[in-house]
Amino acid sequence: MTRGPGGVSRGPGGRAPRVAILAEGQFARATAKTAIGVLRYAPFEVVAVVDSTRAGTDAAECVGVGRGVPVVADVPTALARGATVLLIGTAAAGGRIPDEYRPALAAALERGVAVWNGLHERVLSDPALAAAATRGRATVRELREPPADLEIGGHRRRRTGAHVVLTVGSDAAVGKMTAALELVAALRRAGECAAFVATGQTGIAIAGSGIAVDAVVSDFVAGAAERITCDAAEEADWVVVEGQGSLTHPGFSGVTLGLIHGSAPDLMVLCHDSTRAAVKAHDELPLRTFGELLRIYEDAALWSRPPGSPRIPVVAVALNTAALDERSAARAVAQAAAETGLPAADPIREGAAGGDRLARALLAAAR
Amino acid sequence: MTRGPGGVSRGPGGRAPRVAILAEGQFARATAKTAIGVLRYAPFEVVAVVDSTRAGTDAAECVGVGRGVPVVADVPTALARGATVLLIGTAAAGGRIPDEYRPALAAALERGVAVWNGLHERVLSDPALAAAATRGRATVRELREPPADLEIGGHRRRRTGAHVVLTVGSDAAVGKMTAALELVAALRRAGECAAFVATGQTGIAIAGSGIAVDAVVSDFVAGAAERITCDAAEEADWVVVEGQGSLTHPGFSGVTLGLIHGSAPDLMVLCHDSTRAAVKAHDELPLRTFGELLRIYEDAALWSRPPGSPRIPVVAVALNTAALDERSAARAVAQAAAETGLPAADPIREGAAGGDRLARALLAAAR
Repeated sequence: MTRGPGGVSRGPGGRAPRVAILAEGQFARATAKTAIGVLRYAPFEVVAVVDSTRAGTDAAECVGVGRGVPVVADVPTALARGATVLLIGTAAAGGRIPDEYRPALAAALERGVAVWNGLHERVLSDPALAAAATRGRATVRELREPPADLEIGGHRRRRTGAHVVLTVGSDAAVGKMTAALELVAALRRAGECAAFVATGQTGIAIAGSGIAVDAVVSDFVAGAAERITCDAAEEADWVVVEGQGSLTHPGFSGVTLGLIHGSAPDLMVLCHDSTRAAVKAHDELPLRTFGELLRIYEDAALWSRPPGSPRIPVVAVALNTAALDERSAARAVAQAAAETGLPAADPIREGAAGGDRLARALLAAAR
Repeated sequence: MTRGPGGVSRGPGGRAPRVAILAEGQFARATAKTAIGVLRYAPFEVVAVVDSTRAGTDAAECVGVGRGVPVVADVPTALARGATVLLIGTAAAGGRIPDEYRPALAAALERGVAVWNGLHERVLSDPALAAAATRGRATVRELREPPADLEIGGHRRRRTGAHVVLTVGSDAAVGKMTAALELVAALRRAGECAAFVATGQTGIAIAGSGIAVDAVVSDFVAGAAERITCDAAEEADWVVVEGQGSLTHPGFSGVTLGLIHGSAPDLMVLCHDSTRAAVKAHDELPLRTFGELLRIYEDAALWSRPPGSPRIPVVAVALNTAALDERSAARAVAQAAAETGLPAADPIREGAAGGDRLARALLAAAR
């Protein structure tokens, strides 16, 4: 794969990919995080979503985004629509390839269709899928495969003058990638040279580059984050790094702290899903209040800096209110602003106005 | 390898290994962390240390421990002393096999001698070493190789009644493994059923089991720590987990937080090297004060618990004063106790009396 203009991943010969998204039995808002992100942001064409349980519908009916992209019953139907790539569009914690996906993946590989996989489990580690890829001479792109030459973090200085922003969260899967992409779009609307740094599989599928920090050997998480952040800062004046997990998540907190210290942000934006009351899959763990989260993130960000370093502030709150009605959403935004004293917005529901409000907070803080 | 009584790793046929430690050109206190730990604690025999630059000396002359273990010039000399295993005894940040070690490793493997490796780089990934192992029919034990079936942390409950203690540090390489092993010894002297949980390569070499959490894919650090802690808690009333890195280290902090949330300690012991003023290899980062470190660790430990959970206290301070004279060491211990209001000891310099003082703090806190 080479990287085309705008970070679009192109296949051999430079043709833009035509992507079908595999979400068999799982094409719903809660589970199809990768599918939704790609449908909303990918710079390449999505020709179909494969989910036999929803075949005949439109993607937007199922997940609220992707109007005009049909949901089809199987891989051959997706191929008939010209798909050259099958992207695994859902992600379960733990990252195993669901068994019910394997026949569809084999069918694609046998027909010479590339598979893009963002799960921890590697496609070619399944002998049946490896055999199918060999038969079809198909390629596999492992979105979570890290570079081989990572280093321990803390040793590289980045270009002076670049502003680094990290999106951080009240929990996993609350909209940190979405907020980062909307911040980049808003900063660009404001005339700034801004870059998005992908740190997870969906972001990498969208941007065409990045490192999935949760798939890196843990000693190298900060080093990986440092590398992609410093690289982006060579070119852009605003570097917006996609956050991962949460410092308050019992399973993912280490990834989050490594990413914070490795990316070494100047500013942070706190992301929250307004319908989330407890840590995902942990009903026993109520989410922290905004006040607690601000204190936790601002404290932790300073731990790797010399004593007396300037505060690394959270300067805005990005909300995901997709599951709320209009009135409840407006109330959630107002409440977040009141509780934190910071600008708050849902950059999807409010569109450019929301993203612009968040970006103004960044620009004001950098002045 | 099977695990013998007391966690001794035995070779095929159950014979206890006779280990030579490779430290070519690097057998000094600052770099030979694995060698020193193994010389002090291993339940198997160490027959020689290989370092041509110090050949003819005694290990204790070089690193203060290992009286009676000769330092020899090369692998053949170590083999003549009956070595059946060559253990790589030094560790550089980043974990590459030093090029100057490769000839010695090849010599051992070609002669059928097993190699134990605790570095990130795997021995058999070097084609020359792989060929040597094939020729000599030699085995390689990768101490940092994680289990294949790890899970996301946060989902397993451990046996009620077991007390979990985690050693945490002011920096990397300050004595967290040593403190954990001395705490286990002291708790056993007090009649308690105590287990050591190894989370790094040296601890694993000593204990014969464990998971090197810094070598695990970062999404699974907490899950790995949770597994080995919960497993140990099935058998022991006191589980002492070896800490890793530091929350204030710019490269390793993510490993540390994942280990804290995964092992979910009831009590912590803060470890510090009394001669360390700044983060290792980061002169620009002065170490935090004891007061700051207590607050940082106690705060972070609670992040993955429900709001209102009881405090997870640091109850004692374990110091490494090896490089100080007697009077400065006593002053350092007194100062740590005064600054923290906690019992403090150097469990190596003070011997059993030091370890017992730390263990009494654990026993008192659990009452």
